[in-house]
Amino acid sequence: MTTVRFEPLLSRWRRRVEAALEQALPPATIHPATLHEAMRYAALGGGKRLRPILVYAAGGVLGADEALLDAPAAAVELIHAYSLVHDDLPAMDDDDLRRGRPTCHKVYGEAMALLAGDALQTRAFEVLATAPGLDGERRAALVAELARAAGSRGMAGGQAIDLAATGRTLGIAELEDMHIHKTGALIRACVRMAAVVAGDGPEAARLDHYAKCLGLAFQIRDDILDEEGEPEVMGKARGADRARGKPTYPALLGLEEARRTARALADEARQTLAPLGERAAVLAWLADHAVERLA
Amino acid sequence: MTTVRFEPLLSRWRRRVEAALEQALPPATIHPATLHEAMRYAALGGGKRLRPILVYAAGGVLGADEALLDAPAAAVELIHAYSLVHDDLPAMDDDDLRRGRPTCHKVYGEAMALLAGDALQTRAFEVLATAPGLDGERRAALVAELARAAGSRGMAGGQAIDLAATGRTLGIAELEDMHIHKTGALIRACVRMAAVVAGDGPEAARLDHYAKCLGLAFQIRDDILDEEGEPEVMGKARGADRARGKPTYPALLGLEEARRTARALADEARQTLAPLGERAAVLAWLADHAVERLA
Repeated sequence: MTTVRFEPLLSRWRRRVEAALEQALPPATIHPATLHEAMRYAALGGGKRLRPILVYAAGGVLGADEALLDAPAAAVELIHAYSLVHDDLPAMDDDDLRRGRPTCHKVYGEAMALLAGDALQTRAFEVLATAPGLDGERRAALVAELARAAGSRGMAGGQAIDLAATGRTLGIAELEDMHIHKTGALIRACVRMAAVVAGDGPEAARLDHYAKCLGLAFQIRDDILDEEGEPEVMGKARGADRARGKPTYPALLGLEEARRTARALADEARQTLAPLGERAAVLAWLADHAVERLA
Repeated sequence: MTTVRFEPLLSRWRRRVEAALEQALPPATIHPATLHEAMRYAALGGGKRLRPILVYAAGGVLGADEALLDAPAAAVELIHAYSLVHDDLPAMDDDDLRRGRPTCHKVYGEAMALLAGDALQTRAFEVLATAPGLDGERRAALVAELARAAGSRGMAGGQAIDLAATGRTLGIAELEDMHIHKTGALIRACVRMAAVVAGDGPEAARLDHYAKCLGLAFQIRDDILDEEGEPEVMGKARGADRARGKPTYPALLGLEEARRTARALADEARQTLAPLGERAAVLAWLADHAVERLA
């Protein structure tokens, strides 16, 4: 992998979205302070920032002005952060650790974490609706894209499918259906929002297919890391999903076949980009990274 | 009160928003079915529909096309429904009954209720962003208004203030601050969204002040009903807030003074409308109703 080549670009995008999130979130000094503190704890606590990076990378390929991508990059990360806070709650996965730190409800209590998640979601849509430099049609279209991806037919729906699946044996089609909703929809929204900002072009459909492959490859790697990742590198315990009776790709296919499937998806993602040439190099690298990453 | 006079109008608006909600919510036959069923249970289960009625009534005064008010009317009710589902959860108020029926988590479990609330919020913004008949500027402005009112500086912030206040003795200013956030912001958003649809005019500021008074009057009446309402009429037990150590107006001011304060706010709301004459009659009636209602 040519990580070294892209590291300056990735770092720059991470700094961009960090600044955008910093600005999107009310300071912890502003009333009600504890809620704002909890929101900041959940959203500014590091993380890979895969989704914002995808917004910037896809927007770059489509020729969008980078400054106009800050709003969708921050908004999709706010949605991701809210979903993690709610997912970690005792009523859901009951996790104590996230990114090597205590989860939001461990620090602020369950009720405050619930509200922080709620308010992070709200803020995501406010950020899009008030994004500077974009006309109303595009701001409304961004809200529509992100809402479709985050709602009952997207991410929240995937979590509901996950709930119903725990402890049951799923077929591969059912497992894929769960992940297409749970993580795939939001990853596709990154690319689709970039296309809204850039003004839809012929490359948008191609990038959408790329994102579909990437999302699934990324999820399979997540399942594999749950089996064999290094807890110190991941910032969470190994085997947590298996222990909860959650269906995973390695459980269904075996580790080897799961690895092969992820690799095939990354290759398909790469091939989809081929006609775009060198300007899509960072997206191609992201596809490889999705299935080779250690955390 | 001239309830009889306005009953046909109120019934018509209730039917309108019921139809809009019915259309906004995916059928319970659509995958993931249980999540959609839980969302419908929470949002279609009756309720006073005060907020949608306020959208239609304010929109009518401002000359908005009634069909264009369906989206904001449904969206504000979806936000209200989501807030009730999350508020009833064990981590928050731990309520078993709502509108005389088991609460959402009692029927569907905590995890599914959490997701249903999350997805109801998402759907509210999607409804606004895709509202037919409105240009992009107005759709984005509606999202911005509702998000501001529902987020950390509005409704969710009010719930956080409420959390921090439970078991403490508040001053009247702190109690008011809590309610201005917790219920007032969303009630003001009804009127402000109606103004966005109608195209802002000189009457919008007047209606905004009316909504501020109405929201607080409504909340004081809620506190009074918690003390002396009929459980059968209210569909919930009496004294629940007091038992939880929540600060209330009657606890702080006494019942008599709380009643006087609510009445004074309703009168101020009415006076604010005076220059608008007969076309604001239903809004004036709503102010009286807010402080005289039995449930």
